[in-house]
Amino acid sequence: MEVGFLGLGIMGKAMSMNLLKNGFKVTVWNRTLSKCNELVAHGASIGKTPAEVINKCTITIAMLSDPAAALSAITSKGGRFLEAPVSGSKQPAETGQLVILAAGDKALYEAAIPAFDILGKKSFFLGQVGNGAKMKLVVNMIMGSMMNAFSEGLTLADRSGLNPHDLLDVLDLGAIANPMFKGKGPAMLQNNYSPAFPLKHQQKDMRLALALGDENSVPMPVAAASNEAFKKARSMGLGDMDFSAVFETLKVLKHSS
Amino acid sequence: MEVGFLGLGIMGKAMSMNLLKNGFKVTVWNRTLSKCNELVAHGASIGKTPAEVINKCTITIAMLSDPAAALSAITSKGGRFLEAPVSGSKQPAETGQLVILAAGDKALYEAAIPAFDILGKKSFFLGQVGNGAKMKLVVNMIMGSMMNAFSEGLTLADRSGLNPHDLLDVLDLGAIANPMFKGKGPAMLQNNYSPAFPLKHQQKDMRLALALGDENSVPMPVAAASNEAFKKARSMGLGDMDFSAVFETLKVLKHSS
Amino acid sequence: MEVGFLGLGIMGKAMSMNLLKNGFKVTVWNRTLSKCNELVAHGASIGKTPAEVINKCTITIAMLSDPAAALSAITSKGGRFLEAPVSGSKQPAETGQLVILAAGDKALYEAAIPAFDILGKKSFFLGQVGNGAKMKLVVNMIMGSMMNAFSEGLTLADRSGLNPHDLLDVLDLGAIANPMFKGKGPAMLQNNYSPAFPLKHQQKDMRLALALGDENSVPMPVAAASNEAFKKARSMGLGDMDFSAVFETLKVLKHSS
Amino acid sequence: MEVGFLGLGIMGKAMSMNLLKNGFKVTVWNRTLSKCNELVAHGASIGKTPAEVINKCTITIAMLSDPAAALSAITSKGGRFLEAPVSGSKQPAETGQLVILAAGDKALYEAAIPAFDILGKKSFFLGQVGNGAKMKLVVNMIMGSMMNAFSEGLTLADRSGLNPHDLLDVLDLGAIANPMFKGKGPAMLQNNYSPAFPLKHQQKDMRLALALGDENSVPMPVAAASNEAFKKARSMGLGDMDFSAVFETLKVLKHSS
Repeated sequence: MEVGFLGLGIMGKAMSMNLLKNGFKVTVWNRTLSKCNELVAHGASIGKTPAEVINKCTITIAMLSDPAAALSAITSKGGRFLEAPVSGSKQPAETGQLVILAAGDKALYEAAIPAFDILGKKSFFLGQVGNGAKMKLVVNMIMGSMMNAFSEGLTLADRSGLNPHDLLDVLDLGAIANPMFKGKGPAMLQNNYSPAFPLKHQQKDMRLALALGDENSVPMPVAAASNEAFKKARSMGLGDMDFSAVFETLKVLKHSS
Repeated sequence: MEVGFLGLGIMGKAMSMNLLKNGFKVTVWNRTLSKCNELVAHGASIGKTPAEVINKCTITIAMLSDPAAALSAITSKGGRFLEAPVSGSKQPAETGQLVILAAGDKALYEAAIPAFDILGKKSFFLGQVGNGAKMKLVVNMIMGSMMNAFSEGLTLADRSGLNPHDLLDVLDLGAIANPMFKGKGPAMLQNNYSPAFPLKHQQKDMRLALALGDENSVPMPVAAASNEAFKKARSMGLGDMDFSAVFETLKVLKHSS
Repeated sequence: MEVGFLGLGIMGKAMSMNLLKNGFKVTVWNRTLSKCNELVAHGASIGKTPAEVINKCTITIAMLSDPAAALSAITSKGGRFLEAPVSGSKQPAETGQLVILAAGDKALYEAAIPAFDILGKKSFFLGQVGNGAKMKLVVNMIMGSMMNAFSEGLTLADRSGLNPHDLLDVLDLGAIANPMFKGKGPAMLQNNYSPAFPLKHQQKDMRLALALGDENSVPMPVAAASNEAFKKARSMGLGDMDFSAVFETLKVLKHSS
Repeated sequence: MEVGFLGLGIMGKAMSMNLLKNGFKVTVWNRTLSKCNELVAHGASIGKTPAEVINKCTITIAMLSDPAAALSAITSKGGRFLEAPVSGSKQPAETGQLVILAAGDKALYEAAIPAFDILGKKSFFLGQVGNGAKMKLVVNMIMGSMMNAFSEGLTLADRSGLNPHDLLDVLDLGAIANPMFKGKGPAMLQNNYSPAFPLKHQQKDMRLALALGDENSVPMPVAAASNEAFKKARSMGLGDMDFSAVFETLKVLKHSS
């Protein structure tokens, strides 16, 4: 099976390299051509336009930065479309540990399974187009509220005389232990918010999840309170830091006047 | 080392049995004497009063239902005190997988380590008396907010046309996967709220955590919103169900008038 | 000065009648022609199309049900535009007691002042187009949060053994006495929510005000909590009742499962 | 009728002077005796102890700073008790414009009416002891949430390009016009928070109202969000300023790390 790849950012590059290493034929296209070099060195072909890639390949995967870029890259005529947002960042992309949230054309999903099996530890078919993006919003909404709950707990521990590192250890042994607390907790206690998932993107997803809830008359008071905390963080200039920087909103701040 | 045990409820019985099986001498006391029989059959001695147990044993562990019961059982004279709330319920108690949050007399903690090593997978010494209870409040506060975030996500998934079982699967593969979501999610989707941790106790812990935050000027907007959801659940008559029943507050309800 | 009127709904009819009674020449247009009859009987002329009205009159006021209707009615060529949402409903429209929130062309505002003096007790010029609508959103956001605060207070009074009618009397004597509490309180205590301002419109304005806050990085935790309460009310089927029906969300409800 | 007065702080002094001016016989006691001088100059008698005042007078009014002070001043034997918190500060106390929230002994209330008619524009009898304090909590809870709604509106207006002074004018003409917005708005826009009602006291009342709601299973999400904002303000060192200083929590703040 020949797989096309449109867009060679961090994710696209790691994913197409992974397919090459696993014996797939891969044809790539990228707006800035020089980003294709490393993949060509590993055996990829180059397409001059998105259309050329799409016409040549059985399936073409677009990993583009924004919806408009994605839409302009697609040749509508005769095409079948599968939306497939992924959960996971650079490292899972390199090691084939993504979670793939596909939705749209069911037959196309089935055709893509061999590639999805390499790229992800698990792929889902979620029904009509839009459901992949919705699922991602729901997951990120829960994640954002959990980050706020975690930040409040760390702050309360610290200010009430406990050692917040002890809290991290206790949490990691119990029913709510999870990779995010374990991975981000120690950095947060050092005020280190190197962006893995920028706060402004997390807040955008909270906002969109709340809008989805609004459409469907679902009250979500905890997500709403979390969203306001992320907005507060944005107003403090923390939008480009990791979303764990919402922790800063709870610290003792000086007022400006 | 001889260990005393005051109180043979679900937890006390499992813990003292565990110590017996691991070669400790154990002397037990319980208000209702008949509850001691099974332990005696496994080699435990009986003390007639709490004082008798305390005088006889190197350390005495009280697992009593309420603080007043605990206080009346302790003989103040010459005693050293260690607060040690545990995290974990019946099964971890039987298998020595508790998490022990000790605080108070440091030397007593060290003397108790051989027993704690059997009873728990990990014990912490958290400083002055009160810190054990505080740590438990902080953990339960985070847990309560997470349960609300989870409930909101399940509801949003369902009402926006996703399969909430797919959401459970997606969550379990990602950065926020945790035993609580995995353990309680399927039951919640069947409206099954058999009480492992009753909602009214979770709400009490949220309230106490918020009060602790108030004392220390820590704003906790997400915990506050979660607390109101638990109060809403109580007003719906769900206080004695599992705390996951807060899920019900988000469903479509009929108004009364 | 000749004033044109596009749209003879409740508001448009009351306002144009008021201008006629105060000696203005008025030309009206309405999609359903028969609604013009009463005004013609009081001396109004009829225009066959919006364009005819606009060409004939010094200023033309559009009171149309939705933005699309308003836009399609305006002939862009050579026109000057003034946005002027009003605060107040039927009765203030009849008695010239509206509050007019104008924004856009300053010279046009000045030309319209003689008409605004009849129609409103006060008119504002708020700067560029969009500011009139924004001001209305801000006012309605505050109003929506106040309605929630009021509902919570009435519920707390009732459930803690006070007479909520006493609360109404006490409120009306103090620093937060306001026409809304006085006007709506007695009806709310009788579960009477005849729609003066439908809840779904209030919730839409809360949502838009929160979106405006999002754009400008303004955290608004109380508005966010209020918005969720209105969403809850919508999920209970109360969207077409008066926005004071948010009171129902606080009552003791039965869960469905 | 002879009226006793225990406690000559700001309120007690203004109230007893008001009674003297209206022809009542007044006997006063105060811990610091010198504070009695001005009243004696206007015709008051002095009691050496609270007991002496109580024995001498038909009714004795205690305006003491804290409940412990009040309780120690009362001679229990044969006494009848009426709780009567007042709404209003110094100026209404001087001019007899207080609102009196009495609860307890009904016959005593009726005996006190001649004095209450001078001291207040209105007095209420609210039933059993405790109801006066509860009513005050409910009113202050609504007031605190309104202050947050108002602060959010002022901030949103300012940051979205409106003139917040225009917002004050628009608010004052509409259905939610109230003395608090009118009185405090202009000062808030100048960052002037001279304490009429200190923020820490407002937050205490919000906390107690939420606790009352908790006892009675009343969810109050808007009050809860408001309480967290007041806590945030306390953490910023604003506890001794006027409660309108909660406005500061919404401004753009610098983070500390």
